[in-house]
Amino acid sequence: VTVEIDPGRFLSDLQALRRIGAFDGGVERLAFGADDRRAREWLLQRFRDAGLDAEIDGIGNVYGRWPGATRTVLTGSHSDTVPCGGWLDGALGVIASLEAVRAVREVGAPPGRGVDLVSFADEEGTFRGTLGSSVFSGEIGDRELDEARNSAGTPLRRALADAGWAGRELAQLDPERQRVFLELHVEQGPRLEAAGIQIGVVTTIVGIRRVAVSFDGRSDHAGTTPMAMRRDAGAAAIRFAARTLDAFERQRTEHTVWNIGSLTLRPGAGNVVSNRAEMLVEYRDATADALVSLHETVERIAREVAAEHGCPCKLRTTVDTSGVDMDPEVVSTIEAVAADAGAGSLRMPSGAGHDAMVLRRRIPAGMLFVPSRGGRSHDPAEDTDEADLVTGARVLARAVERLIAA
Amino acid sequence: VTVEIDPGRFLSDLQALRRIGAFDGGVERLAFGADDRRAREWLLQRFRDAGLDAEIDGIGNVYGRWPGATRTVLTGSHSDTVPCGGWLDGALGVIASLEAVRAVREVGAPPGRGVDLVSFADEEGTFRGTLGSSVFSGEIGDRELDEARNSAGTPLRRALADAGWAGRELAQLDPERQRVFLELHVEQGPRLEAAGIQIGVVTTIVGIRRVAVSFDGRSDHAGTTPMAMRRDAGAAAIRFAARTLDAFERQRTEHTVWNIGSLTLRPGAGNVVSNRAEMLVEYRDATADALVSLHETVERIAREVAAEHGCPCKLRTTVDTSGVDMDPEVVSTIEAVAADAGAGSLRMPSGAGHDAMVLRRRIPAGMLFVPSRGGRSHDPAEDTDEADLVTGARVLARAVERLIAA
Repeated sequence: VTVEIDPGRFLSDLQALRRIGAFDGGVERLAFGADDRRAREWLLQRFRDAGLDAEIDGIGNVYGRWPGATRTVLTGSHSDTVPCGGWLDGALGVIASLEAVRAVREVGAPPGRGVDLVSFADEEGTFRGTLGSSVFSGEIGDRELDEARNSAGTPLRRALADAGWAGRELAQLDPERQRVFLELHVEQGPRLEAAGIQIGVVTTIVGIRRVAVSFDGRSDHAGTTPMAMRRDAGAAAIRFAARTLDAFERQRTEHTVWNIGSLTLRPGAGNVVSNRAEMLVEYRDATADALVSLHETVERIAREVAAEHGCPCKLRTTVDTSGVDMDPEVVSTIEAVAADAGAGSLRMPSGAGHDAMVLRRRIPAGMLFVPSRGGRSHDPAEDTDEADLVTGARVLARAVERLIAA
Repeated sequence: VTVEIDPGRFLSDLQALRRIGAFDGGVERLAFGADDRRAREWLLQRFRDAGLDAEIDGIGNVYGRWPGATRTVLTGSHSDTVPCGGWLDGALGVIASLEAVRAVREVGAPPGRGVDLVSFADEEGTFRGTLGSSVFSGEIGDRELDEARNSAGTPLRRALADAGWAGRELAQLDPERQRVFLELHVEQGPRLEAAGIQIGVVTTIVGIRRVAVSFDGRSDHAGTTPMAMRRDAGAAAIRFAARTLDAFERQRTEHTVWNIGSLTLRPGAGNVVSNRAEMLVEYRDATADALVSLHETVERIAREVAAEHGCPCKLRTTVDTSGVDMDPEVVSTIEAVAADAGAGSLRMPSGAGHDAMVLRRRIPAGMLFVPSRGGRSHDPAEDTDEADLVTGARVLARAVERLIAA
């Protein structure tokens, strides 16, 4: 026998979860907010209905264990969203994993084997990115939890207390039991759609550096101050940004992507020379070496431009996560079951971070993607064809089945 | 006899005007606001005390005519300020001109000759830049006055009514009577101070173009969208700005100055590709040909970058004033009287606009500058050494005397 999902049940649950926090086609379930809490209580019941020993733990993870198993596949994702988010990001992986549990239960797991299920808390970083999976993996401890706050300044501890979850036990990853983690997710990019392929098999999750770059100059009248007497922080920032974009283009690897998505000049008037410029430079690549090399480029250009313009430059790294390769055996397994299910697949990196990145630092892990219409995500326009959703859930269930038997 | 100003009287009036709207070393007299009105009522009395037939007209100009004269030199400046402005900008020219009137009256003017005096309204553009001088010169009419509003949306007409000046006659330039206009002003730049010279003789007031440049792109996830599939309005804007700065550097004339003082990326997040970028590009030069040539450069680079990045570009000119040369004979006269007064002088362009620019389109005009400490202006730090203020007022009075006799 091969596991078979129930597409109607799967899609029905996906739509049910969509209704919690729904607005104008999109969904908003900010971590520990009312809708996120309602969604987790609803998921808890579904996890129990699927026969799991399930609880919401002390960080808000909805966590279900297969009764009687000593060796499991852990599968899941997250059910919180960004502000004004889409309906599939995270939710798809949680409901497809729930359906995989039900499908495996229907055909039966080998003795002592089973599937554990999780919806991690606050993957999107309302308080801290990949919060639930990082606590589950033991990467962060009490001190970081004491200090975490959302953008409104609310302490994480108070949000947990308001949710009624403070003081509960924290579920912990057990590598002896959970031998592998699987996560299905929307691609959040345009590659699969452009290639006409249904399944993306993630080979690596890229590392991210985000650097806040500032230049300080002197504000002067832009009509009466000769060009040679200016210390123009705006001109310095523009030249730094342009040279950095050009340099990244030259030194890119096959996985390098970058972005300067924020740039501000102050005081910001047409006829006043800028005394301050601030920008965010972000770059992602698969290896630590590549990230270091990109960072050296940023530092070199910043030094050069600061000297040329007489505008001191400061660099402050605000995000620094390492890239991780997915487990090669899991990658091959996903490819094989996709082929068995008649679905095309494409090996690809993930340019976004995911809970699988955190789990992968402790146990083997793999991820599969389904296409995102127009590449859109973190937006109410986020969507995927129903047939692709079903194919994704089916491949996930078969990969789970293959891996619990391994 | 040569006219001689009374430095104590001159400086005392300058300090008296400084107290109206004073704060923390700076002055704020926004056009038609309470302090601007108080200052104009105070000036009106001073103009009358100096023996002039003086009124505040229907646009707020304080205007005094020399009784019995049929041929005059017109001299003055403005007494309004920018928000949080300095104490000398405009005010210095008005009080020095008042002192010139008094000094000429003391030695006597030739028969039928005299000095007319003006403090123009709203030079700084609370409602419209060089408003008072433009109405006085007949450059703008009722329709523009009907439409003018300040940044809070208050109509100019209401502000004039609140001031009690609505419906009054509008004083008009009379080129048969007023043969020349003279304006003393602070340099607002660092050249005179750097050169150690007391008097700047303005040869030309540069023209200004300010262009609002925007690029439209598509917002995408900056991690999951391959570089080649992006339409990054931010990258387009950065490359446009850098190439424009470089191109201006190559094609500059001796008078060209430029500034990109405002640049905004939207939505403005480190991990989101920008779907919109907006900036202000401003450039100034002495001749219309030079401005046209700079504008062609902007248009060419905008077209190139828009095509390279797939991001349509829009250019909207928001400021477009022509440069004007000061009258060569007036320039020579100022130089000569400066030398007679033992003051060094330097011919220089004015990078900022002034009322003299408006008057010059109808009658001969000239301007002289005194040094600005540290080049600062439009700021409470704006200041000039007392000795330089007195030298400036003395040279102005002697230039007035020389020109009324001409």
